[in-house]
Amino acid sequence: MPTDIEKLIQPSSIAVIGASADFNKLNGRVMKFLIDHGFSGEIYPVNPKYDLIEGLKCYSNIDDLPKPADLAVITVPAHSVVKVVEACGRKGIKAAVLFSSGFKEIGGKGEALEATLVATAKKAGVRICGPNTIGLINCFDNAFASFSQYGYGENIVGSISFISQSGAFGTAIAALARARGIGLGYFISTGNECDLSVPEIAYATLKDPRINVITCYVEGLKHGENWISLAELALASSKPVIVTKVGRSAAGKRAAASHTGSLAGADEVFDGFSKQYGLIRARNEEHMLDLADAFMLCGLPEGPGVGIITQSGGAGVMMTDRAVELGLNVPKPCRKVMSAINEIIPSFGSANNPIDVTAQFLMNPEVLRDSIIRLFDDPDIHIGVVWLQLMHDHVDLLTKIFKQTKFRVKKPFLVAWVGASEETIQKMRAIGVCCLRGGDPAIDAAAALVQFSEAKCRYTVPFTKNRGRKITSVSLMGHSGIVSSNDAGDLLVKAGVSIPKHKLCKSSAAAVAAAKLFGSDVALKIESPDIQHKTDVGGVKLALNGSDAIEEGYAEILSAVAANAPNARIDGILVEEMVEPATELVIGLKRDPTFGCIIMVGLGGIFVEIIRDVAIRLCPVTIVDAHHMLDNLKCSGILDGTRGSRGANRELIARMIVDVSELGIALKDSLVELDLNPVFVSVNSAIAVDWLMVAEK
Amino acid sequence: MPTDIEKLIQPSSIAVIGASADFNKLNGRVMKFLIDHGFSGEIYPVNPKYDLIEGLKCYSNIDDLPKPADLAVITVPAHSVVKVVEACGRKGIKAAVLFSSGFKEIGGKGEALEATLVATAKKAGVRICGPNTIGLINCFDNAFASFSQYGYGENIVGSISFISQSGAFGTAIAALARARGIGLGYFISTGNECDLSVPEIAYATLKDPRINVITCYVEGLKHGENWISLAELALASSKPVIVTKVGRSAAGKRAAASHTGSLAGADEVFDGFSKQYGLIRARNEEHMLDLADAFMLCGLPEGPGVGIITQSGGAGVMMTDRAVELGLNVPKPCRKVMSAINEIIPSFGSANNPIDVTAQFLMNPEVLRDSIIRLFDDPDIHIGVVWLQLMHDHVDLLTKIFKQTKFRVKKPFLVAWVGASEETIQKMRAIGVCCLRGGDPAIDAAAALVQFSEAKCRYTVPFTKNRGRKITSVSLMGHSGIVSSNDAGDLLVKAGVSIPKHKLCKSSAAAVAAAKLFGSDVALKIESPDIQHKTDVGGVKLALNGSDAIEEGYAEILSAVAANAPNARIDGILVEEMVEPATELVIGLKRDPTFGCIIMVGLGGIFVEIIRDVAIRLCPVTIVDAHHMLDNLKCSGILDGTRGSRGANRELIARMIVDVSELGIALKDSLVELDLNPVFVSVNSAIAVDWLMVAEK
Repeated sequence: MPTDIEKLIQPSSIAVIGASADFNKLNGRVMKFLIDHGFSGEIYPVNPKYDLIEGLKCYSNIDDLPKPADLAVITVPAHSVVKVVEACGRKGIKAAVLFSSGFKEIGGKGEALEATLVATAKKAGVRICGPNTIGLINCFDNAFASFSQYGYGENIVGSISFISQSGAFGTAIAALARARGIGLGYFISTGNECDLSVPEIAYATLKDPRINVITCYVEGLKHGENWISLAELALASSKPVIVTKVGRSAAGKRAAASHTGSLAGADEVFDGFSKQYGLIRARNEEHMLDLADAFMLCGLPEGPGVGIITQSGGAGVMMTDRAVELGLNVPKPCRKVMSAINEIIPSFGSANNPIDVTAQFLMNPEVLRDSIIRLFDDPDIHIGVVWLQLMHDHVDLLTKIFKQTKFRVKKPFLVAWVGASEETIQKMRAIGVCCLRGGDPAIDAAAALVQFSEAKCRYTVPFTKNRGRKITSVSLMGHSGIVSSNDAGDLLVKAGVSIPKHKLCKSSAAAVAAAKLFGSDVALKIESPDIQHKTDVGGVKLALNGSDAIEEGYAEILSAVAANAPNARIDGILVEEMVEPATELVIGLKRDPTFGCIIMVGLGGIFVEIIRDVAIRLCPVTIVDAHHMLDNLKCSGILDGTRGSRGANRELIARMIVDVSELGIALKDSLVELDLNPVFVSVNSAIAVDWLMVAEK
Repeated sequence: MPTDIEKLIQPSSIAVIGASADFNKLNGRVMKFLIDHGFSGEIYPVNPKYDLIEGLKCYSNIDDLPKPADLAVITVPAHSVVKVVEACGRKGIKAAVLFSSGFKEIGGKGEALEATLVATAKKAGVRICGPNTIGLINCFDNAFASFSQYGYGENIVGSISFISQSGAFGTAIAALARARGIGLGYFISTGNECDLSVPEIAYATLKDPRINVITCYVEGLKHGENWISLAELALASSKPVIVTKVGRSAAGKRAAASHTGSLAGADEVFDGFSKQYGLIRARNEEHMLDLADAFMLCGLPEGPGVGIITQSGGAGVMMTDRAVELGLNVPKPCRKVMSAINEIIPSFGSANNPIDVTAQFLMNPEVLRDSIIRLFDDPDIHIGVVWLQLMHDHVDLLTKIFKQTKFRVKKPFLVAWVGASEETIQKMRAIGVCCLRGGDPAIDAAAALVQFSEAKCRYTVPFTKNRGRKITSVSLMGHSGIVSSNDAGDLLVKAGVSIPKHKLCKSSAAAVAAAKLFGSDVALKIESPDIQHKTDVGGVKLALNGSDAIEEGYAEILSAVAANAPNARIDGILVEEMVEPATELVIGLKRDPTFGCIIMVGLGGIFVEIIRDVAIRLCPVTIVDAHHMLDNLKCSGILDGTRGSRGANRELIARMIVDVSELGIALKDSLVELDLNPVFVSVNSAIAVDWLMVAEK
């Protein structure tokens, strides 16, 4: 039995509620598309105005339908929608696409109407795509349940699913795909997403074995758990999800908010999630289609080494620049491979990587094929990019050569062909070779293939093995707002996080005794549920040594706090062992409205404040993820030491990140925020010297 | 009288030395191109084998020519070239394009042959384009002095000059331009550049009034002074120079070196030069053509405010993201403008920037025109980008609307049209509107227009007024290698650079006396022409206070240096006033092999070491340039203060940069390097507390 969502995307019968016989109207256009494209299932127009539409029996109402259609396409005005959805439920129709606008997107009354719609649909057991959508197209089955202009063109079917939050821009992207000869399997616009949203529908299409690549255009985020499910299925089934998400900048987010009426969501969080779960972010529509094309036709490389083959040294240099920018390697081939290639190419070529076979290869085209084959003998080369230009008279010859090459090599390769015609690209696609129109787009695509492959590697390392120990014996019961440093410290220790020796003291004598016990200089910090920024109220003294200094410091803190925060409740003063300063990190937990508990790591001080050099992931993270976070920091070189310092132990830091993330999971229902700042990291330790924990009120 | 280079690029007669009657050969192909394209001047084939070629009289040797041709195209084998160039000189031919390969690019013997060629050409008074070039095309005059495949196609003439160091990639780019309907005025490949190089030839074409935009493809740099002349003429005449230069990455530079045999040149220096002189760098061939197209058709915006007009909210968000990334503003329109637009557009559109006119505008297309006109009433909007998609049935309507709009507005605008056909783009070009095929490319082009406009503004501020005072009374005469801190300090003071009070002392008693005079803590630093890194040999003591400490420090330094650098000559110890620590900068001068004296400013410590956050310019810089350098630092926010610090006075820093750059000019013949590190900068001072100056040996 197909699920309700499967019925939505793979309907064997479609009822068009409010169908028109006037095919120039939007509610007629959907009829036209279904008929013209030859939808193979039943079509049930519903409209009391007609007996027949284009020879199809038209029903006066939903109750009269001969059977519950798999899908209802609802084209009636907003005010009638709720009744129609009720009727669908009554009839046993489980899924509906809702063209009608006049809901949340107009605010006020529309929002109220949408709330009613949601409640009705839930009660009626009808899953909704929309409202305010241009509809759903399943190109495999010619189910054009849409009024999108895209319906007017030829149906080029392919293994790419495209799910878009925008109707207008979505149509433009789908049309662009068609113009580039890239076939879609699905093109679905989700509209207001009152029920089903992008990741849920994408997930359903990903399960279709005819689909190999998912592309999404996204403006706002909700349902983080659906995004996670989608990404996990994508990794498990080696089918990438490529996302163009707008609202990267603050100005863009504002524009998005005013446009969609929904919060754009923290782009940084989505970006961290993408890195963690191997979602590929595309800059724009062309970039997304380039990547989809490449994923559709190329296998995954087993490493980041790119072999570049050109007949123009300059193009090779340009591609090398781009490859390095994107974190790929362009390794010099091993001696054996270089001499093998030198035997093939002309003497004025180059067997170094980039390989320059020179334009002479047209005389002896096997040179190109054999150079690729030999280059792939190098274990450090994992993917190839072959650059060509013009050669309009030699397309068939080159296609033949590439076909032979494809047959002979196991590693993936792409072709960058400057000035290639549409026809050339189609010919190459027909032999299973991805051909893009320039060196940079091809390198961008190679980088995306590497990125997904690496994410798969991180993912397939057994999760439980790399996850931290589960923390069970912790709770924030009884806490509300700022958690005392002492209690928070206890939780950190339980989670395995190193913190300095510390003791909450109620008198200066107790503080002196604690310091004696620690046998080190100490810091004194005011402990109050009402004070978040202790330094600002004079509540911190550092590096105190000896009874006199400690007693004096204790008194000074109390009087400063009394003066600066007269109403604060005082629990005492925390005496803390001083730790030798080292490189500073910040590690934090936050609750994201879409994705739940997230963890952030960054370099301390100005790096976080000014450069915003942070890496974000969803909790929990594995040790592999934690290392990946550190690698992702722009200034991670600081951890390797500089002239003035010896660097830090990444393994210790990564373990702390894992432990903190597990603490986040253990406390996720009650923890609002945890901020370890600074964490001192050195070659032999990683220790959080100050921390702030906030529980839900 | 045309100059020799003018004769080269605008020949009224061309002699083809070694011409063949076989048009399939390269030396025949050039004849074919000249004849087929209808070169209007005289063509003189020279080859003793023929009497006639295609009806043209063929001469047996150069001496027999009826007059000195403006240009000789030399197609003979390498070993005959020198004799031919001599003959050209004898005949009075002043310019030659040299197809022949077998020179520097093959190394060894070829290099020697090229040296002979250079000497011969100089003596003979013949300017050379090449050798190893595919030739020169002047599309205005149908002078196809080239064997490039580009010659086979139709000649689309336009106001863009394209100068390329690469023949193969150059041909691909020129063909791409043609395929996009972008006309070239010149397409010239410079080959080995034994005489004329890219900037010199670009300069000559820039002086052609038919040229409005220069595009260059560059692999290696030489003749910095020619690049400066080119950039200055470009700014003065408002004709931009757009450069795709490969070799940005270290790996790319290595590849370029192995490809061209010439050093790629420090890309960072070229980048700094480009920012200073308004050269526009393009990432790749498509980006370069996008920008050329935009500059050809758009006026320059008078500020960085972009108005975005769409019928898709999402596209507007995406473009806003990109605009912000590139440093543009997307300002909210003022109230008056917003209400004017609100009166025009449908209620479900948006009058905020991005403006969403919605797809409804097709019913009433003036909505689009009037929205643009009204938006431009806002003084903070300087350039418009209008986004469209598909609309294949409405191209003529929209072209009409844009024509009206263009007529009505003074500010520049571009159209981003997703899925536009070539024909549509041509129609738009015909009415003077630049149409690119996506939001991101259009925003990228808008950013380049703004960038050039801003560079022009910086340039037109009277240079002398903003330049520092000229420094004349300084010299490094008698210095060789490391200049003593004391002497270097004197030079800095003469240049107006603040440094701490200091005195070179030969005894501890003198040091104590100096400290007393300064009335502050002091630093002691060993002074030796043989010691560059003073700290490494124990040659520095900081924050000494009182005679005992100073005496002790003095002795310790001497014994440490005696132990660690026993052979170093010791001039004494520099006693220096301690200055309060502040934000640290590094300011340096270096000598670049291409561009001469350059100045570098960066944030100190790890910022320079790990993030390489530096700005580079050629000396001298103006005060405006100096501020621009500070703005260009990725972490310049640190200068504005952070939670822990009050920030720094940018004007003081900028003045120091200007002064140092003037010192660089004054000492440019003898200075190898100057390194002020660190410079302490705060709200009321900028002072260099340590410096290293190195003179030529």
